[in-house]
Amino acid sequence: MKVVSFVRNGKSSYGVVSGPESSLGIVDMGARLGGKYPDLVAVLKAGALAEVAAAAQEALKGGVAPDLKYDGTTLLPVVPNPGKIVCVGVNYDEHRREMGREPPGQPTIFVRWAESQVAHNQPLLKPAESDKLDYEAELAVIIGKTGYKVSEADAYGIIAGYSCYNDGSVRDWQTHTSQFTPGKNFVATGGFGPWMITPDEVGDPQKLDIQSRLNGQVMQTSNTELMTFNIRKIIKYVTTFIPLQPGDVIATGTPGGVGTKRNPPVYMKDGDLIEIEIEKVGLLSNPVKNA
Amino acid sequence: MKVVSFVRNGKSSYGVVSGPESSLGIVDMGARLGGKYPDLVAVLKAGALAEVAAAAQEALKGGVAPDLKYDGTTLLPVVPNPGKIVCVGVNYDEHRREMGREPPGQPTIFVRWAESQVAHNQPLLKPAESDKLDYEAELAVIIGKTGYKVSEADAYGIIAGYSCYNDGSVRDWQTHTSQFTPGKNFVATGGFGPWMITPDEVGDPQKLDIQSRLNGQVMQTSNTELMTFNIRKIIKYVTTFIPLQPGDVIATGTPGGVGTKRNPPVYMKDGDLIEIEIEKVGLLSNPVKNA
Repeated sequence: MKVVSFVRNGKSSYGVVSGPESSLGIVDMGARLGGKYPDLVAVLKAGALAEVAAAAQEALKGGVAPDLKYDGTTLLPVVPNPGKIVCVGVNYDEHRREMGREPPGQPTIFVRWAESQVAHNQPLLKPAESDKLDYEAELAVIIGKTGYKVSEADAYGIIAGYSCYNDGSVRDWQTHTSQFTPGKNFVATGGFGPWMITPDEVGDPQKLDIQSRLNGQVMQTSNTELMTFNIRKIIKYVTTFIPLQPGDVIATGTPGGVGTKRNPPVYMKDGDLIEIEIEKVGLLSNPVKNA
Repeated sequence: MKVVSFVRNGKSSYGVVSGPESSLGIVDMGARLGGKYPDLVAVLKAGALAEVAAAAQEALKGGVAPDLKYDGTTLLPVVPNPGKIVCVGVNYDEHRREMGREPPGQPTIFVRWAESQVAHNQPLLKPAESDKLDYEAELAVIIGKTGYKVSEADAYGIIAGYSCYNDGSVRDWQTHTSQFTPGKNFVATGGFGPWMITPDEVGDPQKLDIQSRLNGQVMQTSNTELMTFNIRKIIKYVTTFIPLQPGDVIATGTPGGVGTKRNPPVYMKDGDLIEIEIEKVGLLSNPVKNA
């Protein structure tokens, strides 16, 4: 199942993507279940993904058309209001080496805030304060159940699904001090979408090709099997100190090939198109505009 | 006005502290206005602090006693559910030097999450995973109005009030990698309280004595005038990249004297009592227990 958050008639909603790839539709589940579950986070908190799936199937019975066409619908970031966005830095060896960092004994954890996110097809904004906006293709993990002190063996059990993340980074602000926070939190610099896809449709999340393309040119290409700390290890590490909650998001780190380490460096600018594609997960596409 | 968040009959509420210091009471504003404003963040989002103040005054008219005694009430962190907790690192010169860091050109910004907070009088928890739990006395700023691209001149205009913060730090986890996140986010390591006090009762927030005491012994003593980046500069810097929202919290950094840089180092352990006192703002007291 693919779940999206979107805007319909000026109101936030969420729904299930249906139909063949050539003519995708959306079943508006916010319209049907919004009283019980106002948003995707509420669905996840209630453990109601199966109820949502069943209700969507019921709505399409007898060949009824979905409520909206997918094309042309204004999407929201998959989880517009996550309690936590946990980011893992330098989690592919090639990227670690290009950034000149030592092999870490533990995952490098930093934080994005929700206001820095944008949806699929919405513009990523290059801030007026910098010309060093860089892309970072990442597999996003969306948490479905509260987990605290979770073992590696149990880690997959708290995952609701996967998505694509573009951990857009304002490089000069990222290195103002030792802490990455400013460079990772400019408004509308983090792409998140297009949808959450459930684990049954993904299979092994550590065997997925991952790529970024800037104006059609491949900039990063790798496979999630090359993560330094895999998803199980990340979940174990993070939940040692803090619980992960339904709707929380983990951005699992980016492979080598970022723009800032190219010679000459490549940064995103007004008019560019940046795409993140992950095998079996989806394609996240964002035009770049000046803020 | 002093505003607290607390638990009454198992339900979260918020209220106004009233009466002389020898017998403080709480007017339960959640009970009166909870339909409109379910919590302090909702009050701030609605810009309704003046309405809360007037309703509290009305409730006490004619000498009516407040709803609860302050002593014995189970408090919650002042803002139990902030959207963002923005922390400023090494923001007093003495602490910067003891931590061996270079003078920064910009504020060092890192992040706490809400699950790491505890209220006044609730136990700070020393994690089983570390014996290096340290204290950090900090002035907390609570945001009252959305601010984006705020100038230094306008910065005080978005502040709702002040509180004490103990930015409790698990030092070995703070230095696992370059990013502080894990060491700053163990469950129940960040004290926040006792109350939010409004700016009219504080006067100049950059002229306040600030102190931490461990089992009665003074460990840190300084004045907020010694911040490297003052509150106006912090707000300007942060709102350059992301908006601050009602209920967001800024922990403005700690003075010199932390436990980890003492010789020998001093860490908090089960049975300790840690107090943070800030002139005109209040006294935050937390027993320390093993998790």
